[in-house]
Amino acid sequence: MHGEIITIGNELVNGRTLDLNAWYAAGRLAACGLTVTRITTVGDHPERAVSLLREALAHSRFVIVTGGLGSTEDDVTSEIVAEALGRPLCRDEEMFELIRGYVTRRGREMTPSLEKMAWVPEGSRMINPRGSACGFSMVENEVLLYFLPGVPDQMRYLMDRFVLPEILEREETLPVMRQRVLKLYGPSEPELAELLKGLSACEAEGAMLGFYPHFPENHITISVRGKDEPSVMGLLGRTEREIRRIMGSCVFASGNDSMEDVVGRGLKEKGLTLATAESCTGGRIGDRITDAAGSSSYFPGGVVAYSNEVKKAFLGVSEKTLQTHGAVSDATAREMARGVKERFGAGIGLSVTGIAGPGGGSRQKPVGTVHIGLASDDVTLSGKYRFWGGRGQVKAQTAMMALDWVRRMLYGYPFLPGV
Amino acid sequence: MHGEIITIGNELVNGRTLDLNAWYAAGRLAACGLTVTRITTVGDHPERAVSLLREALAHSRFVIVTGGLGSTEDDVTSEIVAEALGRPLCRDEEMFELIRGYVTRRGREMTPSLEKMAWVPEGSRMINPRGSACGFSMVENEVLLYFLPGVPDQMRYLMDRFVLPEILEREETLPVMRQRVLKLYGPSEPELAELLKGLSACEAEGAMLGFYPHFPENHITISVRGKDEPSVMGLLGRTEREIRRIMGSCVFASGNDSMEDVVGRGLKEKGLTLATAESCTGGRIGDRITDAAGSSSYFPGGVVAYSNEVKKAFLGVSEKTLQTHGAVSDATAREMARGVKERFGAGIGLSVTGIAGPGGGSRQKPVGTVHIGLASDDVTLSGKYRFWGGRGQVKAQTAMMALDWVRRMLYGYPFLPGV
Repeated sequence: MHGEIITIGNELVNGRTLDLNAWYAAGRLAACGLTVTRITTVGDHPERAVSLLREALAHSRFVIVTGGLGSTEDDVTSEIVAEALGRPLCRDEEMFELIRGYVTRRGREMTPSLEKMAWVPEGSRMINPRGSACGFSMVENEVLLYFLPGVPDQMRYLMDRFVLPEILEREETLPVMRQRVLKLYGPSEPELAELLKGLSACEAEGAMLGFYPHFPENHITISVRGKDEPSVMGLLGRTEREIRRIMGSCVFASGNDSMEDVVGRGLKEKGLTLATAESCTGGRIGDRITDAAGSSSYFPGGVVAYSNEVKKAFLGVSEKTLQTHGAVSDATAREMARGVKERFGAGIGLSVTGIAGPGGGSRQKPVGTVHIGLASDDVTLSGKYRFWGGRGQVKAQTAMMALDWVRRMLYGYPFLPGV
Repeated sequence: MHGEIITIGNELVNGRTLDLNAWYAAGRLAACGLTVTRITTVGDHPERAVSLLREALAHSRFVIVTGGLGSTEDDVTSEIVAEALGRPLCRDEEMFELIRGYVTRRGREMTPSLEKMAWVPEGSRMINPRGSACGFSMVENEVLLYFLPGVPDQMRYLMDRFVLPEILEREETLPVMRQRVLKLYGPSEPELAELLKGLSACEAEGAMLGFYPHFPENHITISVRGKDEPSVMGLLGRTEREIRRIMGSCVFASGNDSMEDVVGRGLKEKGLTLATAESCTGGRIGDRITDAAGSSSYFPGGVVAYSNEVKKAFLGVSEKTLQTHGAVSDATAREMARGVKERFGAGIGLSVTGIAGPGGGSRQKPVGTVHIGLASDDVTLSGKYRFWGGRGQVKAQTAMMALDWVRRMLYGYPFLPGV
């Protein structure tokens, strides 16, 4: 079953925005065994989009269009569809009420430009909205047409929740389709190559694999289609077990779980609390920990110790350690972790100190040098890593590795090797 | 001068690879004032690619094709071009020697599949190679055609070094193109849509406006093309002034500056330091402040005070305040800001306390209720907001609003209205 993806937006054809929507849709469709023959991007230019849509209708069984559904004058998708299919625009009352409710809850006024979003081509069906941007769908000459907002979160949600199941449902053979996402952190390239080899048997049986880098994580989707639930779930389970066998503790989560969710669950299970002492990450670790709902039960807080003065006054790092070893050292990381554990009365103290760049590097301690410290009732540990990339990438890798240390300590896995 | 970009590769239509080449080419062309009307991606499927190329020839002045130039069987671009343009393949001797030299220097043998790379459509011109993958170009019916390798480094190098200069050289009219980005925080999308109507005069003069939501910010690009620098800069300046006149202090930055860059510059100019006391954001404000390189000169650090115990012990919030007003209150926000300012010896103390959700809300203090506090040598201020959305959105809006408070205090602008 062949289909097309069309993305609309001036910001895409002028290169201001990277088209993550087309990439996401293409990957998800492929993971379900569906073939995308073409991805086309045009600006907010009605004539071009109209002829493109007509062409897609003539060649495809499904067409996914993203972008142009907002409330500004640039957002012309509804008009394009109306023109291309000869369907007049009508106000969808359900959509209108949804937008009005949404706007009212935010204490704002309904405006003509917001109302415009509820005007959709005749015969459209609203698909489950999230926020103020709704998507809609229709069937034209047996072609399934989906119009999704360009906001990536909304687009992904609607894609996974509504579009994929509906397209798959129309297929008559192999009606059962199950997917699983496994999240990995840490494997080296040779390890990933090894993984691919080890999975060839599962692929031969019909498991479809998708690989998605989500810096600094790697996600693998396993998709299996088949005639019945037991055979599908069997192959899905075998493939997952095979991945876990090869990758071991590098598989940190599955499904919608994030690293911070896994860490939070581990802390709750063990009845432990965690306090953070962050230097180069500036607060990102605490930010991530508190992305998990309910984190207040195991996270009292932490200290952002960007300056040496704060490291001394609030964490008890000694002047001598800073003088002898420097702020970016195992010794400082250990004193920070121990200090925050004790002062916050937490079960675990976690610390990071490093050089995020672009300045501050030296020959001995180049940009990307990071020390992680971890203190529990029993031990105080530290390790040194060298991360690559710019300031943002160093911060992201540092926060991820620090959380992974907590996970590995909680579950008894060895830490990833440093330098 | 309008053109198209075509990218070829199965890895692109199945979502395994993100199409950074099309994005890069589109951005570079736009920055030079050239318009890309369409970006199309197809798999390694000769028939589809041939018809696509023929179509592009009929509508464009230039076409940039990337991918499919390697040595594997999938790499079919040369054959596609030969077929689409009716030009037989011939061996380009210069290219052949280059590949042979490259291969020999690496101690490898020349193979038929490597030789295949030197077989290009008649009338092609090799463009400066790098590594073993060469690009080639040709002119067909006055349309400039460029075929570039899919390897991003090679593609970018050839694009900047050869393709762009050649395309620009052919242009004769409106050679000057300037762009400016303005970043806004505060107005909603519909408010912006209404306000942008006020810019119709500038648009009539030829200013091109683009509107890009970057939650929770909004970005506007102004693009002007013209015959000479003074007239282009004149219209660009008038349009920017008009936007600033309408939007006032909601315009917080231009160009590549972020909110944290603007805040950092303001602190440096005034010789002030900033310390943070974060509850519901969990460290995100510190994380953002330290995204700015050099932030250590004005940011000593802060306290992530997620629990009430930490608010008391590390910030000096009184038990009585917590009992009387609760942790999410103006009084607590003020004590947190004052406390962190004093204990960190900072010029400004910034605090946030709120309910990020999904739990913890009540009728009086629903999810999204946030208090911001700001303490300077002279005053201690606080304000209450109600943000919408899920946990992540509440945290993002809280961090942004808190940074905006610092900016507004530094520059003497009124704070955005709360509830």
